[in-house]
Amino acid sequence: RIMRPDDANIAGNVHGGTILKMIEEAGAIISTRHCNSQAGEPCVAALARVERTDFLSPMCIGEVANVSAEITYTSRHSVEVQVNVMSENILTGAKKVTNKATLWYVPLSLKNVNKVLEVPPIQYVRKEQEDEGKKRYEEQKLDRLETKQRNGDVILPVINPEPHTVGYSQSSLIHLVGPSDCTLLGFVHGGVTMKLMDEVAGIVAARHCKTNIVTASVDAINFHEKIKKGCVITVSGRMTFTSNKSMEIEVFVDADPFVDEPRERYRAVSAFFTYVSLSKEGKPLPVPQLLTETEDEKRRFEEGKGRYLQTKAKRQAQMQEAAQ
Amino acid sequence: RIMRPDDANIAGNVHGGTILKMIEEAGAIISTRHCNSQAGEPCVAALARVERTDFLSPMCIGEVANVSAEITYTSRHSVEVQVNVMSENILTGAKKVTNKATLWYVPLSLKNVNKVLEVPPIQYVRKEQEDEGKKRYEEQKLDRLETKQRNGDVILPVINPEPHTVGYSQSSLIHLVGPSDCTLLGFVHGGVTMKLMDEVAGIVAARHCKTNIVTASVDAINFHEKIKKGCVITVSGRMTFTSNKSMEIEVFVDADPFVDEPRERYRAVSAFFTYVSLSKEGKPLPVPQLLTETEDEKRRFEEGKGRYLQTKAKRQAQMQEAAQ
Amino acid sequence: RIMRPDDANIAGNVHGGTILKMIEEAGAIISTRHCNSQAGEPCVAALARVERTDFLSPMCIGEVANVSAEITYTSRHSVEVQVNVMSENILTGAKKVTNKATLWYVPLSLKNVNKVLEVPPIQYVRKEQEDEGKKRYEEQKLDRLETKQRNGDVILPVINPEPHTVGYSQSSLIHLVGPSDCTLLGFVHGGVTMKLMDEVAGIVAARHCKTNIVTASVDAINFHEKIKKGCVITVSGRMTFTSNKSMEIEVFVDADPFVDEPRERYRAVSAFFTYVSLSKEGKPLPVPQLLTETEDEKRRFEEGKGRYLQTKAKRQAQMQEAAQ
Repeated sequence: RIMRPDDANIAGNVHGGTILKMIEEAGAIISTRHCNSQAGEPCVAALARVERTDFLSPMCIGEVANVSAEITYTSRHSVEVQVNVMSENILTGAKKVTNKATLWYVPLSLKNVNKVLEVPPIQYVRKEQEDEGKKRYEEQKLDRLETKQRNGDVILPVINPEPHTVGYSQSSLIHLVGPSDCTLLGFVHGGVTMKLMDEVAGIVAARHCKTNIVTASVDAINFHEKIKKGCVITVSGRMTFTSNKSMEIEVFVDADPFVDEPRERYRAVSAFFTYVSLSKEGKPLPVPQLLTETEDEKRRFEEGKGRYLQTKAKRQAQMQEAAQ
Repeated sequence: RIMRPDDANIAGNVHGGTILKMIEEAGAIISTRHCNSQAGEPCVAALARVERTDFLSPMCIGEVANVSAEITYTSRHSVEVQVNVMSENILTGAKKVTNKATLWYVPLSLKNVNKVLEVPPIQYVRKEQEDEGKKRYEEQKLDRLETKQRNGDVILPVINPEPHTVGYSQSSLIHLVGPSDCTLLGFVHGGVTMKLMDEVAGIVAARHCKTNIVTASVDAINFHEKIKKGCVITVSGRMTFTSNKSMEIEVFVDADPFVDEPRERYRAVSAFFTYVSLSKEGKPLPVPQLLTETEDEKRRFEEGKGRYLQTKAKRQAQMQEAAQ
Repeated sequence: RIMRPDDANIAGNVHGGTILKMIEEAGAIISTRHCNSQAGEPCVAALARVERTDFLSPMCIGEVANVSAEITYTSRHSVEVQVNVMSENILTGAKKVTNKATLWYVPLSLKNVNKVLEVPPIQYVRKEQEDEGKKRYEEQKLDRLETKQRNGDVILPVINPEPHTVGYSQSSLIHLVGPSDCTLLGFVHGGVTMKLMDEVAGIVAARHCKTNIVTASVDAINFHEKIKKGCVITVSGRMTFTSNKSMEIEVFVDADPFVDEPRERYRAVSAFFTYVSLSKEGKPLPVPQLLTETEDEKRRFEEGKGRYLQTKAKRQAQMQEAAQ
């Protein structure tokens, strides 16, 4: 589809959140189709996890987004989908890879949303594909368990914060879940949630560095809890770490099922987004350093630094591999 | 949330209707949450009235709207909410107050939409706050009754009107109420209605003066009648009064419950919007005088003049008070 | 993409206008890509005409729309695109053809919107394909000229109309053209215009028969005049003819370039839409007969009857051909 002005920031760069939403919709279609391909209980595939995703090149207003999706692994109860996004300038014909994303879906029964159904197995061309898929499956399962414990944290308001402190840029928005945000099961599409998360993260980043910013990457996101139609969701973000040219922002999504439900407000998702600041020519600019004040902020900064260095090391290893 | 191109006119000024819709959503969330805070029948807060609202400074594309809401009074069956909107230029950090609005909500039972529930009382810091709230409550109750009588008027079509007459700029639009326009109860959000009203009023104003126009203020709006999903609503506006630099437009909302309902078309809301015309530098421009032809038009012009002078006197009194 | 509640009416049937908009977007992408495939002045393909389109089966919320487009003929200055739409129920895997549409695009220079560029020729597998395409090209060219003359008509308001008369159901809406409605050239996408036309035609049909209605077909639409960003467009519809089970509605689109332009209001497009009324089980219902009053209404009724009988005869001929 053609990218419109509302899909982009004022510099004309399409929001990372818009792209994540398209990716998730493609993944949901292909995995729902697959899980219903054999006779049996009808089901809808629900997003369980998105692996770390890099935004390789910015997309602009007027370009066409080509989204392609493929199922690359199935376990008994989950589907791994690989989605590729290419941006195409239909005037020049130039095409660029924008994203490669890996998503995990779980089929939920249409009649009983708490029942996870079985996934029809796929055929692998080579035996190694299955083994590699299984390895990825085990890894993400482990990682899912870890994040579940990390989820207690909240963002408290700060009065009269100093520039470049955590409190200065932290932001939140509330959104009332409407019918078009939801799947056939009446729960929010994972892609809608990610779009809101990217919107808040983008505001945090812009408040911090006051320049044109774009999403550079999103760490793995685990969707532990569904969000129902009619909920109010609060999406909050705070900066956790800055390197010379990047900013890491942690985003929380809390759901308030405030009508018709006995349940308390709960944490539905959390994730780390990385942003860079771009000059008018599209070159990365240095960003102001984050000023940490409390013990917690310093700890989170160190943890962010750890993630940053780990990613950097991994990328260098990949480049060396590719060069060999 | 960040203001997008679709939220604004071609000069980049965010539509007053977009802001009214955000205000109403914030009010609906806080009052629904409050009314469900004690065990009892679940309910949804429905907008009953918005007090007169001034647009203090225009908001632009790319700015972030900060909306904050607070409950300031509760009667037995209604909640008063104060909503403040600030526009923030996240690049410069500049913040400006855009609006201060006061809204009244009524809790309707989720099971029986015609049943008004009781509102849990709030605690006041000082006794005077409660007394002042009670006074505001009584005043708005009186005003609500008055408008109910004023509601019979209709806008008749005019063939081949002269420029600057009432018939020349009068406009109307029809809208089919979709699922995203509605609350959990299946009735149109007050904010959606106000956005459509502002859209029509803006077109009337632009047709009259053929320049860039912005919403300056909205008189108190009373929501007497709910509008159900599936209705067709007709929103019509006509100019009633012009001062040197402002235009007053009366807007009517009529609902046509034409599928599956025995009920006839009915008047759901009406209100007065005031617009100003802005130069490219954002300065108010003189507007062409409205040409009144019929007796009714002349009477409405005089009534509009009365409202204009009253508001002007009130504002001067406030400024003198503030200066002391 | 998955069909959402906002894409459909309350009975769950996706609006014909939503489908027309998807078709036009696919056509615009493929023809813009083709016209820029050779070095030369960059251009954007603008919709010039849509051939008569039948809606073969209704699409529902939750289904996935698969849109595929192919260039089938090129003349020196125009491109013919064939677009097919299939609805897929991803739960059952069932697929149905929803539409087959033929659209004509013209490449306009990005630097000078009034300059029509040359279209790179396509290769045909068989010589007959080129000849047949040329025949279609000549036919549509003729038809385009004819409609140009028909375009002077206006819809006059009627006061207190009787049920089932033309005046009773006639409707109009106004829309301010926003940035997301426009192509890179700053002109309204043909698909956006068709969506608004279908919205008005649907309201006329529903007002007439007060039941659930769906778009059955759209006659050929010619886009003679572009509509610029910032215009106000008025879309008006009136019923022209009823058969036992169908209603024909004529829709006009007028553009008002009222800010910053010397030009007067002008007719941009007009078209005939045919609607049917559906029971809860999806069966066509009888519709109330249209009461014609004036000479013009009677004449338009006869013309509509002519089109109806012509289409019916053509369809029967096709069925006999298919049966042989």
